[in-house]
Amino acid sequence: MMNNLSGMRCAVLGASGFIGINLCRSLTGRVDTIRAFGRRQIPPEDLAGCEWIAGDFSNPTCLPHVIDGCDVVFHLINTTTPANANVDKIAELNSNVVSTLHLLDACRETAVKRIIFVSSGGTVYGIPNEVPTPETAATNPITAYGISKLTIEKYLRLYEHLYGLQYRVLRVANPYGPYQTAQGNQGVIAAFVRRVLAGKPIEIWGDGSVTRDYIYIDDVVEALELASIHVGSGRIFNIGCGEGRTLSAIVAAIERQLEKDISIQYRPGRPVDVPVSILDSTYAMRELGWRPRTRFDDGLYSTVMWMRGRLQ
Amino acid sequence: MMNNLSGMRCAVLGASGFIGINLCRSLTGRVDTIRAFGRRQIPPEDLAGCEWIAGDFSNPTCLPHVIDGCDVVFHLINTTTPANANVDKIAELNSNVVSTLHLLDACRETAVKRIIFVSSGGTVYGIPNEVPTPETAATNPITAYGISKLTIEKYLRLYEHLYGLQYRVLRVANPYGPYQTAQGNQGVIAAFVRRVLAGKPIEIWGDGSVTRDYIYIDDVVEALELASIHVGSGRIFNIGCGEGRTLSAIVAAIERQLEKDISIQYRPGRPVDVPVSILDSTYAMRELGWRPRTRFDDGLYSTVMWMRGRLQ
Repeated sequence: MMNNLSGMRCAVLGASGFIGINLCRSLTGRVDTIRAFGRRQIPPEDLAGCEWIAGDFSNPTCLPHVIDGCDVVFHLINTTTPANANVDKIAELNSNVVSTLHLLDACRETAVKRIIFVSSGGTVYGIPNEVPTPETAATNPITAYGISKLTIEKYLRLYEHLYGLQYRVLRVANPYGPYQTAQGNQGVIAAFVRRVLAGKPIEIWGDGSVTRDYIYIDDVVEALELASIHVGSGRIFNIGCGEGRTLSAIVAAIERQLEKDISIQYRPGRPVDVPVSILDSTYAMRELGWRPRTRFDDGLYSTVMWMRGRLQ
Repeated sequence: MMNNLSGMRCAVLGASGFIGINLCRSLTGRVDTIRAFGRRQIPPEDLAGCEWIAGDFSNPTCLPHVIDGCDVVFHLINTTTPANANVDKIAELNSNVVSTLHLLDACRETAVKRIIFVSSGGTVYGIPNEVPTPETAATNPITAYGISKLTIEKYLRLYEHLYGLQYRVLRVANPYGPYQTAQGNQGVIAAFVRRVLAGKPIEIWGDGSVTRDYIYIDDVVEALELASIHVGSGRIFNIGCGEGRTLSAIVAAIERQLEKDISIQYRPGRPVDVPVSILDSTYAMRELGWRPRTRFDDGLYSTVMWMRGRLQ
């Protein structure tokens, strides 16, 4: 692991979410300051060692206090999911893009040096015209969620151009691992494992052929850390394992891991789901010195172990 | 000119603007209905033959009335300019993107078949990595204005994907010609000619080397009409002449045309101005059967003649 984060003062926005908790836990003891910002009034018990600040991202007045004095801001907040963002596109735009513009203005005012934004490798490209998909592929989202992520990427570039606020964007594939709770309808692996452990059937939208690039959370966290200290001209990086797995393959892997047959309820496919999303992450490997270290079966094992512990 | 527009019911949003007036005048007598929508309470006198509807684009309740029963909606409205949009990026996003989302929802509700959107060939690409720039080039705007245009393009694609609302986007270069008034700070040719005819010096931001692709308004109008009836898979088309002219060359051409020396005041360059923007419009030529017909000197002559008439 890297050790050159020492002295860094950072803010993690969305610190009680799946990626946020993992990032904060990884940073703890290795940086100078961690301001952990999230909606929960009481800090998550797993975030001992962080300075917890409760607040609502949609309220811009709280932001300067959170990020003041920080070198790096990790922006991990999603207020919606790909599936629900299309329902009210204006609310989606306001809650994600407008709130992020308030954040960027606050970063300027408080002289934050760099912002790291988690974008969405599974939605910004839309139905990809190249698979695995590199960062240079066309970006034609089929969800308002993906449009918001892409628009925020454009504003980040604008703020660097106009004001010198550095940024890095990680277009993360489908992350999975400990602390993914499957609440808020994101994370099929967490959702599947949770239901199987609870003795319930799982639901699959479509025929099980929808293919995604699943990336273990520790690898995502390492990419975030590398992006925070990256020197170079690259700004936008795909973060995926580069391998596609169908929903049916995920179910089979969970069946092997848990040694039980899984009952599946099939539902109609959703128009928000692109049929296949696999990222080409060679640019991140070259520029960030990153690589996906975790084999899928090992990651799934850790995920199952963590969820078993939580459900006891 | 095309004659197969007959029977078409169309709405022109932004009908009292430069492109809008020219489009309405071209359509008059060739289509079934023209709803001309703009902010002026009294219709522009040049729009006899159109059904004038006064209203504010930012008020979504007026939109269904304007577009109800229309086959094609021409969306020509800009509420900002590249130069002023960066000042308040959230206001820019609200006045252009959010208002357009209201329009798209109104199009769904009223069963509009197709929307034609005028995007910005000079700003969506940012500092181009290819010149002349094709539609497939990277899109990295350096103005909030360009980000709004690009974001609207993405939503248009989303609405076609989700709801079948057809769209075509014209990324228009720098249009010039009659009815460009240089009010609202857009249109250097109009601004220069107006000041020279009034005996005033002109202002140039930078050293005069900023290079743009100037396209005569009649050619833009023809592209709009062709886009309204286009059948094919293309959606986004550059509309430019494919030739670059510096500000200094524009001044020299006006000097030749008016046979007088022009006094120039140089001002510092602006960060919103990309150094060069020239569009590659071969895709529009192939897909729309369009081509830029007007030679620059002829277009400039018509522009000068029109403005002389207006200033008398």
